[in-house]
Amino acid sequence: MPQIDNSTDDIEARVLDAASELFIRYGYDKSTMNDIASNAGVAKSTIYLRWKKKEDVFRALLIRESCLVTEEWIDRVEADPKGGTYGAWIRHATVATFSNPFLTALYKQDRRVLGSMIERLGQTDLYQQRQAMFLHFFEALQDANAVRKDLDAHVLTYLLNSLQFGLIHFADVIPPQQTPDLSRVWEVLVEMVERLVTPEDGGDAEAGKVVVRQFMQQVRQRLDEFEKQSSFTG
Amino acid sequence: MPQIDNSTDDIEARVLDAASELFIRYGYDKSTMNDIASNAGVAKSTIYLRWKKKEDVFRALLIRESCLVTEEWIDRVEADPKGGTYGAWIRHATVATFSNPFLTALYKQDRRVLGSMIERLGQTDLYQQRQAMFLHFFEALQDANAVRKDLDAHVLTYLLNSLQFGLIHFADVIPPQQTPDLSRVWEVLVEMVERLVTPEDGGDAEAGKVVVRQFMQQVRQRLDEFEKQSSFTG
Repeated sequence: MPQIDNSTDDIEARVLDAASELFIRYGYDKSTMNDIASNAGVAKSTIYLRWKKKEDVFRALLIRESCLVTEEWIDRVEADPKGGTYGAWIRHATVATFSNPFLTALYKQDRRVLGSMIERLGQTDLYQQRQAMFLHFFEALQDANAVRKDLDAHVLTYLLNSLQFGLIHFADVIPPQQTPDLSRVWEVLVEMVERLVTPEDGGDAEAGKVVVRQFMQQVRQRLDEFEKQSSFTG
Repeated sequence: MPQIDNSTDDIEARVLDAASELFIRYGYDKSTMNDIASNAGVAKSTIYLRWKKKEDVFRALLIRESCLVTEEWIDRVEADPKGGTYGAWIRHATVATFSNPFLTALYKQDRRVLGSMIERLGQTDLYQQRQAMFLHFFEALQDANAVRKDLDAHVLTYLLNSLQFGLIHFADVIPPQQTPDLSRVWEVLVEMVERLVTPEDGGDAEAGKVVVRQFMQQVRQRLDEFEKQSSFTG
């Protein structure tokens, strides 16, 4: 007979799983701490030991999902022989992000799911941070001679972030029967970006891969720090 | 002393100018037929001779602005030595569209401006039509050997429409001080698209230019027909 694991980590995971399911199905505003406790099969008091209010559960979930997506993204890049290229990096980042329903709702600013948290999180901050991250990464690749140096990193980053933003929102205005297989859209996107950013001599792909690894380690570390700050320290 | 031109065409233009100004400033819902008449300096009964209700004025304005944008787009393509390329075609279409405040509001689905007309127009239709137009055009260019034939026209069209959609919406989530000069973003976009779609041998640019001209004549004719249907035939 399997034993129910009631370790701190497991309880935390069950609560966040339950919260994620409820937020996505009924929305943040309509899900109560009671609903979350009952869906997770824990006492409400157990949740309050960890998080004082529903907003704290939401923020912990956000950090956990970001960590999961980052791990998936790193795995995808490592498993891809061409993972060291900028185009592949973008594809894996985006596929990993948008295979996660909670983060997709976040980037889409889905009011049904996020409810009143939309105002508290600030859409602008979300994209500003993403913009800064992509800019920093592209500049590091330029320094490593892995991408063209004559492209303006700020302009390029803005263009590609617009494109990602467009792809996640455009699906809402085109009926599914007119939407091509999105994995093929991603393939063309990656080819398009590679053709744009690859230097004429092909660039230093090895140096590029080192930059990709370093950069993703930084992302992982930053998320780990966030996670430690927000999680149960009983 | 200049004489006031009270020809039918002039009255119609004045009413539509007035309507455009009011819709953009106060929104469709808050602008009345009285406001439009008073802003245009004509009697309300004069407007009702042409259009039975405010929605008809809105639709007439939509067609007129689309015609104006198409003319500007054609002029831009003709004036551009590289106007026959797909990248330039996209840039001119988009720059012409988004230099028009009314059409920008439409493509942005700006509820403040469009008000209850949003539901009546249907965002999906708008983008479906645009999608079909771009698809048809890219296929014609493929037939003329002006662009790569190994690209899936449907996938490419979807990607580029997402990108356009992204560019007009992304500006809302990034603060102006973090937004680069958009004309430079457009330059990089055009370069990116050209690098993707241009065949290895450069393609048949002359045949491409013929396709561009033919296609834009078709757009113009279609809009002219719409305009005739909706305008005053006293």
